[in-house]
Amino acid sequence: MLSCKHMIGQLLGRQLKRHASHGITARLLEQRYVELTQPDGRQLKYPSIWLRDNCQCSECFHAATRARKSHWERGPLHVQAERVSYDEERQQLIINWQDAHNSSYDLDWLQQRDFSAEARQRYLDEVYKQPAQLWGKPQFGAVTREFAYQDVLQKDAVLCAWLEALAVHGFALLREAPHDTQVVRHLAERIGYIKHTTYGDVFEVKSKPNAGNYAYLMTPLPLHTDMPYYEYKAGINILHTLVQSESPGGANTMTDGFYIADKMRREHPEYYELLRTIPVNWYDIGHDGDAGKPFHSLWRGPVICLDIDGHFARINQNTTKRDSRFTVPLEQALAWYEAYDKFLQLAQAEAVEFKTRPGDVFVFNNLRMLHGRTAYEDSAQNKRHLIGAYVDWDIIYSKIRTLKFPNLKC
Amino acid sequence: MLSCKHMIGQLLGRQLKRHASHGITARLLEQRYVELTQPDGRQLKYPSIWLRDNCQCSECFHAATRARKSHWERGPLHVQAERVSYDEERQQLIINWQDAHNSSYDLDWLQQRDFSAEARQRYLDEVYKQPAQLWGKPQFGAVTREFAYQDVLQKDAVLCAWLEALAVHGFALLREAPHDTQVVRHLAERIGYIKHTTYGDVFEVKSKPNAGNYAYLMTPLPLHTDMPYYEYKAGINILHTLVQSESPGGANTMTDGFYIADKMRREHPEYYELLRTIPVNWYDIGHDGDAGKPFHSLWRGPVICLDIDGHFARINQNTTKRDSRFTVPLEQALAWYEAYDKFLQLAQAEAVEFKTRPGDVFVFNNLRMLHGRTAYEDSAQNKRHLIGAYVDWDIIYSKIRTLKFPNLKC
Repeated sequence: MLSCKHMIGQLLGRQLKRHASHGITARLLEQRYVELTQPDGRQLKYPSIWLRDNCQCSECFHAATRARKSHWERGPLHVQAERVSYDEERQQLIINWQDAHNSSYDLDWLQQRDFSAEARQRYLDEVYKQPAQLWGKPQFGAVTREFAYQDVLQKDAVLCAWLEALAVHGFALLREAPHDTQVVRHLAERIGYIKHTTYGDVFEVKSKPNAGNYAYLMTPLPLHTDMPYYEYKAGINILHTLVQSESPGGANTMTDGFYIADKMRREHPEYYELLRTIPVNWYDIGHDGDAGKPFHSLWRGPVICLDIDGHFARINQNTTKRDSRFTVPLEQALAWYEAYDKFLQLAQAEAVEFKTRPGDVFVFNNLRMLHGRTAYEDSAQNKRHLIGAYVDWDIIYSKIRTLKFPNLKC
Repeated sequence: MLSCKHMIGQLLGRQLKRHASHGITARLLEQRYVELTQPDGRQLKYPSIWLRDNCQCSECFHAATRARKSHWERGPLHVQAERVSYDEERQQLIINWQDAHNSSYDLDWLQQRDFSAEARQRYLDEVYKQPAQLWGKPQFGAVTREFAYQDVLQKDAVLCAWLEALAVHGFALLREAPHDTQVVRHLAERIGYIKHTTYGDVFEVKSKPNAGNYAYLMTPLPLHTDMPYYEYKAGINILHTLVQSESPGGANTMTDGFYIADKMRREHPEYYELLRTIPVNWYDIGHDGDAGKPFHSLWRGPVICLDIDGHFARINQNTTKRDSRFTVPLEQALAWYEAYDKFLQLAQAEAVEFKTRPGDVFVFNNLRMLHGRTAYEDSAQNKRHLIGAYVDWDIIYSKIRTLKFPNLKC
């Protein structure tokens, strides 16, 4: 196996071509930054306070738990660097601090933490989250990824490719899963573990008499996301087709919600702003078969949610779970409907339709994709039957990182 | 048991005093709103589109699943009301729409959905989330709530009071729990279910040789929140003291993080803005005993996070889990440290200290409270031993609602 330094060198060193360290110089800039100038003139620059905060000596850093030890009250903020130098032989930046503490930093370690815009973006795209590639209806064929169920279970490379497809395209199809109610559990546990919800851990989607949830009827299910009424909305939905309907219906519909959000941002910016800022009440009241365990879920969130970097993070849309209580000023409610109408119009126009077969496992990012189902008819001999389970993205991204960068520990 | 209408009448009707409906008039305002004028002159006003969207007839609404049935493409947005009237006998608003559809709405139902600012705020505070009462060190005694463990398990009213204390004050203490490793599980299942994490479902906090996590050492643990490296960070932490340290240490420390955030907003607005907007990399790399199941958790989030309404939603702070990779521009990193220093200074100044006894269960809102621990010493005869479990707020708020408003189903 490659060493840690090696791996990260491959990962982050592409554009930052390594040179012999001969000739690297270090200097202190106004007590605020430390700058390393490399032989080719390229510079690496770090805040002094960041360097002190991340001193890697055994007094400051507990290597076994990869944890910063220092208590902040020891005063790193106001300790100044007295002298900075570069040790050619050890390839280390050396800092002597005014409180007589000394720190040394490997050049490799520093390069991996380069503050330049390109290095930061590379880290975010490769290690943090693979950027979503948005797609409309005409691209459906090009973005569809299929994997054999057994390969996902047995081969790490296939597992990784499947999870990256979910991160990038928002969905993927697994084929040839056995007729076994535990398929979704095996897949979830291959990633990590199932997200438990008020509907249990593994759930069944089939027509139920006296259904307590609209999804458990044979009626068409309009484009929606599951569980908008949770702050911690389910990350991916793993849907295994045990029995498909022989009636003309029961097909899946799907739209890339991030694509629609992006289209609205570009083409209908005023509507976009309304859908991004006006919270909607999403709710779920009832029980899942045991009246002694009722739930009353409620989450207020806009249709379009962004993360701290301004990227699309979550789409909320579910006609059956949108509360008639709309806890916003009257004028906002009125304006919101116009924007919502446009969103649904675009989402419907971009919806793809396909019908899974028994043994297919349709998996999608529930924070991003809108999914639905066409109406169908069960018969005495043929009852449509799907099994589902959720997994959260914290767990999926963690798995992708450990698969792609097994040595990224330093 | 009280009827549903009764309950909600009590809940929402306080300031909207009910009058005999005699004399209520309905009118259409510019095809955009429907206005009801009550005998005392007070008005209720609703967007026409909202009324159409929430028609309660069996064609539009599936009562058994409490779900809106209508497909949007049926065109509610552009259907106009032709005639509005008020039926005194049935106490219903009647709307005849231009597409020949007719809707009727109970006055009660409409009053519960009053769009006035007061009615909306009341709904948010009473049903959605009980507002947090922020507190500093001098208020610690006044905000401390204690409950007997058995009462929480056996009495719904005590369970509800405990959960509301967590929502409002951010923490509570349970006393007299048995010496049983399943106490935290029983409590979590009394609410709903445990949040599973990369550290399992029930976890042990005790000094461990070769600890993979800094919390499993005897060193002091500075003020922190658990799991900032999860998007779906654990909601509450339930910590049961099985064995307390007989050494002078092992005491709990705690600060109300929302109070500190609020103080910064008022007293150091520039620092506040930095802590609210600059994302920090929180990470956790390792495994929990099984090297074959590694994890690499990573979440970028600011120290202070707000919700869609601008309320404090989450505090992230954990010295041992803050990554040396800081994926923001150099100048932001430099500025951030100044603000962070102030935050920690204030948090330390407001920290309370107390030492639990065996049988105590210390429970706190992990999105809000910073908690820590003073250093301690195990001996051969005395090994500090805590058991912990997490539960998420989606589940806690749902439980509070079903306890407080068991009939809020319509």
